[in-house]
This record gives sequence, C-alpha cells and structure tokens, in this order.
Amino acid sequence: MSWNLHGTHAKDGDLVELVGLKNKHFIFRLQTGGELQSHRGVVKHDDLIGLPFGSQVFSHIGKPFFLLQPALADLLKDIPRSTQILYPKEIGFILVSMGIGPGQHVMEAGTGSGALTSAFAFAVGAQGKVTTYEARPEMQRVAIRNLQRLGLEKQVNFKLKDIGEGFDETGVDALFLDLVNPFDYIAQVRAALKLGGFFGCILPTANQVTKLLVALRQNDFAFIDVLEILMRYYKAEPERFRPVDRMIAHTGFLIFARPVLIKKKDEEGQQLLNEINDIEPTD
Amino acid sequence: MSWNLHGTHAKDGDLVELVGLKNKHFIFRLQTGGELQSHRGVVKHDDLIGLPFGSQVFSHIGKPFFLLQPALADLLKDIPRSTQILYPKEIGFILVSMGIGPGQHVMEAGTGSGALTSAFAFAVGAQGKVTTYEARPEMQRVAIRNLQRLGLEKQVNFKLKDIGEGFDETGVDALFLDLVNPFDYIAQVRAALKLGGFFGCILPTANQVTKLLVALRQNDFAFIDVLEILMRYYKAEPERFRPVDRMIAHTGFLIFARPVLIKKKDEEGQQLLNEINDIEPTD
Amino acid sequence: MSWNLHGTHAKDGDLVELVGLKNKHFIFRLQTGGELQSHRGVVKHDDLIGLPFGSQVFSHIGKPFFLLQPALADLLKDIPRSTQILYPKEIGFILVSMGIGPGQHVMEAGTGSGALTSAFAFAVGAQGKVTTYEARPEMQRVAIRNLQRLGLEKQVNFKLKDIGEGFDETGVDALFLDLVNPFDYIAQVRAALKLGGFFGCILPTANQVTKLLVALRQNDFAFIDVLEILMRYYKAEPERFRPVDRMIAHTGFLIFARPVLIKKKDEEGQQLLNEINDIEPTD
Amino acid sequence: MSWNLHGTHAKDGDLVELVGLKNKHFIFRLQTGGELQSHRGVVKHDDLIGLPFGSQVFSHIGKPFFLLQPALADLLKDIPRSTQILYPKEIGFILVSMGIGPGQHVMEAGTGSGALTSAFAFAVGAQGKVTTYEARPEMQRVAIRNLQRLGLEKQVNFKLKDIGEGFDETGVDALFLDLVNPFDYIAQVRAALKLGGFFGCILPTANQVTKLLVALRQNDFAFIDVLEILMRYYKAEPERFRPVDRMIAHTGFLIFARPVLIKKKDEEGQQLLNEINDIEPTD
Repeated sequence: MSWNLHGTHAKDGDLVELVGLKNKHFIFRLQTGGELQSHRGVVKHDDLIGLPFGSQVFSHIGKPFFLLQPALADLLKDIPRSTQILYPKEIGFILVSMGIGPGQHVMEAGTGSGALTSAFAFAVGAQGKVTTYEARPEMQRVAIRNLQRLGLEKQVNFKLKDIGEGFDETGVDALFLDLVNPFDYIAQVRAALKLGGFFGCILPTANQVTKLLVALRQNDFAFIDVLEILMRYYKAEPERFRPVDRMIAHTGFLIFARPVLIKKKDEEGQQLLNEINDIEPTD
Repeated sequence: MSWNLHGTHAKDGDLVELVGLKNKHFIFRLQTGGELQSHRGVVKHDDLIGLPFGSQVFSHIGKPFFLLQPALADLLKDIPRSTQILYPKEIGFILVSMGIGPGQHVMEAGTGSGALTSAFAFAVGAQGKVTTYEARPEMQRVAIRNLQRLGLEKQVNFKLKDIGEGFDETGVDALFLDLVNPFDYIAQVRAALKLGGFFGCILPTANQVTKLLVALRQNDFAFIDVLEILMRYYKAEPERFRPVDRMIAHTGFLIFARPVLIKKKDEEGQQLLNEINDIEPTD
Repeated sequence: MSWNLHGTHAKDGDLVELVGLKNKHFIFRLQTGGELQSHRGVVKHDDLIGLPFGSQVFSHIGKPFFLLQPALADLLKDIPRSTQILYPKEIGFILVSMGIGPGQHVMEAGTGSGALTSAFAFAVGAQGKVTTYEARPEMQRVAIRNLQRLGLEKQVNFKLKDIGEGFDETGVDALFLDLVNPFDYIAQVRAALKLGGFFGCILPTANQVTKLLVALRQNDFAFIDVLEILMRYYKAEPERFRPVDRMIAHTGFLIFARPVLIKKKDEEGQQLLNEINDIEPTD
Repeated sequence: MSWNLHGTHAKDGDLVELVGLKNKHFIFRLQTGGELQSHRGVVKHDDLIGLPFGSQVFSHIGKPFFLLQPALADLLKDIPRSTQILYPKEIGFILVSMGIGPGQHVMEAGTGSGALTSAFAFAVGAQGKVTTYEARPEMQRVAIRNLQRLGLEKQVNFKLKDIGEGFDETGVDALFLDLVNPFDYIAQVRAALKLGGFFGCILPTANQVTKLLVALRQNDFAFIDVLEILMRYYKAEPERFRPVDRMIAHTGFLIFARPVLIKKKDEEGQQLLNEINDIEPTD
C-alpha cells in the first residue's frame, strides 16, 4: 500500500504523522487495532481513523498532538542515515535541474539508506523507474526496507554491484552519484549516460570537487555547474520578525554536468567549451 | 506534442535547446524544414534532426553550438515574466515541501506568466492536475501560450476569476499563492484547502510576510515556516576553485503553513500551537 | 594596568589567556604567587611569568595548555552579557564604517555590559574618549567592572542617565545606539551628533528596523544603509577543506545613517535624497 | 596635513567628500581658490569652506550635492587597486581579530596599492607603526602616493624587498600577508613574528588555502581559523523592507593563525593541537 497525499480523512493503511510538544513527531502507518506508544501517552489508531487531517488529538493522558500527512521532506528527515546528508533544499533543486519528473528513468549510485532513492521514486511516479546501485548488501537491505515503508519500492530496481565494473544500462536520461569518490567512476558514467544527459553529484569537501572537475573535463563533460544551497529560517513571529539564531552552514557542494560530443576543437569550438565551463583559457 | 526528456537523438517535434558562445541559448521545437536564425548564422532543423543530444553543431557561417534537451530549470529561465521571479532553487523546494508529485492536484493563484504553473504541471504529470486562477485576461493568455509551448497545457485548468470571491474547489491537497497581497485571501484559502493540506507562498518584503503571519494565525494555520534560499555558484576551475564574484541576494521569503483543527485551546494545546509556530508565549 | 598586546614574554600584571582541551579558555591577569585552578589541574602564575607567549604549558596533573595574549575578539567573547550580542564581525565593521580610530570621541547608549564600550575604548586609544549612557545603575556597575578588568576604563566617561532627556553633548563625531527602541531617541541623537556625523545602530528584528527607518527619515538623516554580516567558518583541514556544519544565522541588522542639512527640497534635491536612501519615489 | 574626522565645519586643508546624483562621489582636499569640476557643474572650494558638514550644496548649474567627511570605508573604496580586493567587512574583522589598535606595530606584505596599509595606519594611529614590504618599485610608489593623500604616510615604514629573503624585523606583534603565494613564506613569517603573535592572510581560492594550511602546520602554527564574511544590504524602505537583489558572493577566505612553541607532542599534547586546529585525528 503506497504512501499518498490524497484524501481528506485518515484511513486504515495511510502513512500518517503525529506531531507533539517539543516538535516530537512520529511517522507510522495506520492499522485497525494499532497503538502508538510514546512517553507522552498512548494514541489508539482507531481514534485517528476517520478524523480529518489537521485535527488536534490527545493521548490517553491528555497530551496534545496534530494529525498530518507527511510530505516528502518530512519522510526524508525520518529516514535513518548512515552516510552523508541530502536535505530537501538540495533534493528539490536536483529534481528541477536534472529534469526528473513523472515517467522518467533515473539512475543512482550508491543507494545508501535510500533517502535520495525515495525522492527519485516519488518524483518519477508509477510510470517512471529508478535504478540504484549499491555495493554493500547490508546497506541495500536497509534501503529496501526504507522504500517499502513508503510503498515506493515498486518503481525501484535495486542492484547489488560495484559500479567500478560499469553500469549495466546505456542511454540513461539522468544519473546521480552519491559517493565519496565519484571521480573514479566518470568513465563508467559516460558509458551509461546518454549524450547530453544529466549528471549530478554531491560532495562535502572542496578537495573532492576539484578532483571531480578534472575527471569531468577529461571525459568531455560540459555545462559544469558547481554550487551550494543555503537555507535560512525565520522566526514566524509577526511582531518580532527576524532570522533564527543558527543555521546549517554546509551540507555539500552540488555538481551538475552533461556529456557532450565535440566534433571539432578548433579555436571557436574550444572557446565555446571554455565559456560553457566558465574557464578563462590558459596556455 | 509534449516536451519530454527521453530519447537519445533529436526528433521532429522535440523541444530542444541550442547553446552558443557567450552562453547565448535558444529553446525551440524542431520541425522538418525549419530554420533557426541568429546573428551567429543559420542552423537548419533538418541538420539537427537525427543527431544525438549533446552534439556540437555549427551554423552556416561556422559558429559552434551544442544541441541539448532543456531541463525544467532551463525552460523556467526562458519564460517571459511580467511579475516577480521564482527561481529553480525555490521551485524545487516548494515541490518537495508541499508534497507535489505525480498524480497530485495542486491549486495556484495568480497564474502570472505561468512559470510556476509549468513547474507544477511538469511535476504532477499526465495523471495529475493543476488548477490556476488569474484575474487578468491578458495575463492568462500569456500563460496559456507559455504552457502550450511546453505541451503541458492539458493537465492545467485555467480559471479567470478574482479569488476574492473564493475558489470553486474544496478539499484541495496543496495551494500556492503568488500574489502581492496573499494576506487578503487566507479565509478563501482555508475554505478551499483540505485540513492539514499544504499552503505555500512567496513574498519579497518583510512587511508582506508579517501581514501574512497575522492572517495565518487568525485563520488557525499552524506549522508555519518562513525561510529563504540562497544559492552560490562556484568557478568550475579545478586549479582555482572559488565562489563566483556575485550572487543573487534575494528572490523572496517562502512561507509554508497547514490549516489545522483546534479542539481545545487549553494550556498544553496552546503550548503545542505556540511551539509549532516557534512562538515564545507572551502575556 | 592596561591590557596590551606588546611584549614577547609573559610579565607580572599582563592579561593573558590559557587555552586547554575542548577549547576551554581562561582569561586572567598574571600576578606573582597567583594560581589558576580548573578541573584540569592547577597552573601557577609564577610558572607562566617569563615564558614566551605561544608556549605550551602543563597543569600540575599534566594537562596541556597554550599561553596567549588575548585579542579584542577573545575579550569580547569573554564579557558576560545581559543584553543582545555584538560579535567581532559586527564590531569590526562598525569601527571601519563610523570612522572610529585613535583620538576619536565616540558616544554610545546604552552601555549594557560594556562589550561595545570596550571595543570603542580600545579603538580610540588613550588619546581618544568614549562617552556611554546607561539608565540602569546595576548595569553600569557591571560595565565599569568589565572595563576595569581590561584597564580601559580611563578613556571612558560613564553616564547614568535616561537619554530620553537628551544627551549632554553636542557636535559629537560618532554615536551608536544599542537599545531596543532607538526609534524613540532619534531627535535626541540629531541634537547631539554633529551634522554629517556617523550614526549607527544594531537591531535584531525587521519590525524594529522599519520603525527606525521612519524615524531617521523624519529627522533628515540620509545615506541610510541597512545590512547584515554573515560569517562562515571552515574546517582547517588541508585534505578535507569544507565549511563547518553550523553557523550563526543572525546577530542583528546594522543600520548606519548621517544627519544632513537640506536647504532646498526641489525636484532634484528630493531625487538626490531619494537616491541616496535607495528609495524609488512614490506619489 | 592629516585626514581627520573631527570638526563640525569644513576647513581649508580638510579631506572631504561630495556626493551627488546617481551615487557619484568625489573625495578631495579643500584648498582656498580650488574648484571641483564635474559634468554636473563646478563647485568652488571657497563655497564649501566654512559650511557645516552634512550640508546640501549646489554646483554652478544647480546640481545638488552633500558635503561629508569620508570614513575609512569610503577612502578604501576610493583607492585605485591593481591587486585583489579587501573590503571594509574583511578589514574591520582583521583589525579586531589581530589586536590591531592604537600604538601597535603591524607588519604587512605585499604593500600593493596600500589599501590595507591605510587601514592599518589609521587604526594604529600616530603612536603606532606599520611596516610594509613590497618587491615591485612601481607598486610601492603608487602606495606611497595613496598614503600621502590621506596624510597617513608618517606612521608607515615602506620597504622595497622580496620577503623570500626574510623580514628584517623579529618579535613582531601582528603580521598580515596579502600575496598570491603566502605558503612560500611561512618560515620567514615564523622568524619575524613573535611567538603567540597574530598571523593573518586573505586568499581567493580553496586551492591556495589548502596549501597554506599545510605550510602553517609544518611550521607549528596553531589556532588556525579559516572563514569568509558575507555582507547583505537591504533596501532602506520602511514600507517595503527587503534585501537588495544582488550581493558580493566572494571576496576571499580569511585565514588566521598563531605560531606556538610545542614542548611535548605526547598524546594529550597532540590532542590539544588537533582540537585547537579542529582536526579529527587520523592514523
């Protein structure tokens, strides 16, 4: 049974979120007879089924909660992570920049805990497909469980393979690497991704980025963009409107590029490539 | 014929992008016998049809271009705007935060030039639906043309109506306001949006945000988030890696909130609402 | 005995800093026979006196420390605060923007815990003067103690007075307000500050800033700048260079302005005033 | 005759600033009989002498200006640059972080156009001293002229020497490098700077920073901080308060460090050094 955001009232089988005091939240699937136990008391699933979303509910000891449908951003925060962090701010931009939408086929390595896989699976929908590579069996198992929990596993093809041996696919529309050493696999990416396709990557350190930039150039990728996204929250107080005190300073550098076919590297062709890659030509 | 990102070779009817020197780019639909004329020379569509994407091509006077499939982000940059600007960085985050994906029904006002409408139509796909309200007939015509150009008009319901009179729909999953005075329509939003549904808005000034915060509270919206997204590009030069010199400092404040049903505003219930809205209770 | 940054070896009477494990630091004045007691053991002042700064020293139980001269930034972090926070990033910019240097006369209200007073006193030096107003006697006592500790109290004139009654001085070169309601005192500021002098202020919320902007315009201040300063630290690791994970998102908005004398508000004069204040003229 | 910020009325010999429409500004020294000629008309110095600062004045064709005393920040913007840019936001923080104030002795290399030299000379005052090294005679001449214009040349010792041969001084309190290859001179810096003294540097690229970090560690520098400062201006409009559209995204990375004397690199000593430099120990 898949996670969805339709419906005005909570039904048996729905993936729901209860949010209580101190921003404590619980994401779980409703089932007749079920119970949510927390140190703020017990909430019976049967008391939630049939309620309109957005309702205020109370545990058996009277502690208040709100009943909600979780958005993708909420689910992503809730996936246990063993690797580096991709936040909604990065994921949203990746989707929009790499043309990832309904019906698309997206490829990814490594799977990790499946956070990005979930986002891709949600965005491509039932008509789309996500192929995700992972070399560590135990990591893959975690990811499969995470996807199943959201009911998104059907559109995902989980592969257990070291991409050093190459991807099985060719002509792929979009390929994302979430690995510590993407620069070691750019030849494999080039072989799998269609010409002009979308390549993306996230990396925490400047050292990794510079290595990746070298590998991308050596493999005739162009339209290379490197960027970071910062998000700043504000206190939602109308009389004292101001940014919050602290923020995330860094999640990672996002890198995007597209493999091209260069017929002729004459002066203007090289100038075009340089400009596109924002390089000032050197000797 | 719809815009898509599949296929490895350019076909008649495809929406394509040519990128030339000085980052000059042209987005157009291929048609047999067609010609792209620019001051960098003429490119015949027939010479592009059949080429792999990512190919380098040349105008009749030898000027180089790359042939690409445009991503949503490229298309958005290309839509002529008469109103305020929503960038891919904001749009991606809106999609992820408001649960907007394949098969969803999203509502929006005003339509404007249709940039956000296009992004919503792309993200919900052929199984989804976007309903968009606009009060100005000439603006709506521009938006319809922009959506048609991308082949995304089928999943969009264009309405010509002042939302001051209320939306025709109820129980909507997600509703976004892109207007200068959203605070004047929050009662109408509450009536149209399902309880617990996703409300979003973008506003350029702090003054507008504080007015909106008051209106949201008066209408029992909770989980109010106010934030801004900053993006910083880097020079993609491996030997001299550094941020670019200038960046966009502000597009707008994003505001998200969800209408809730408050049964009981006792002390703990109020505390919950306060905490959720990040308010320090005052007397 | 004043704090100074000269000398290569620690002397009796010097204000010094010991930095130990977990970034624990102690700022104190050396005196023959003295002891620093911490839960990392005892360090005798006599063992420090005569050492070159930058030396590694050890407590009686062998815990390591470094012996340093504290910079202004270190001292500011160490001043106990009861009011809002001014960080070195703001203080440095205030000094440079308001022409505050050796021999200058600077005025300030309120004194608060004396953090900014200390910075001003340091920057104007023994030939300069700082006049600081505070309405709360107990707050002033705290500030005097903090300044005495740094040996900077001689160049400071502490006044106990509500500035609502006006400042005693006129023709002042530079005046800074660090108060929650600066907008209530702009007429008093105008009376005390010389024409063309430097006015500065820091405020945490947008609401306060907009009120101040109105008051500044009503009192013929021009060259109004509003800005915020963000600082991002990096991990100082050559092999894994990247920003740290978290940062301060907000300390406050800095506002600067200068009182001017407007002879003639004809069209061009008004345009000049508008441009200088970055206003698009409205009806 | 030195630049100063005292006085309420413009006097013969004062360094003043006229600001006209479109933020056009002129910084010059008043002299009896002088004239400022601009395409907005002529302003006679004699008409300015005796006016209160902050006055509105008019050219012979009636164009309006304001008469001001320039702050350090204004002067810095006005110094013609041939090398990289140090903005007031960086300069202010450098002063506060490196203990640079009245009476201090600061050393710098290279002199460049003298922008930072001017800031140091202003901050240390007549009782202080700035020693600045430059290898290019023509560059030094530019800097001397720039300092003379501000009347700050007396407290500056201009040296024409390649610092690869070492500095002539030892036991210096604070030393700043504004060079493309500071990593080549860290041994020389260590020899000149007193133990525990303040070292600072600004560099535009991540590649330079990582090289410098290696050199600093090899030469037993600790308390290494790497950071960047971002400044965002706001529209000073009370009814439409919001950030301006564009901002400077990067001037440079600031690096600060202090040479220390490490007696014993046992486990805890190494841990202290690691912690201080924010390193996670590796094998």
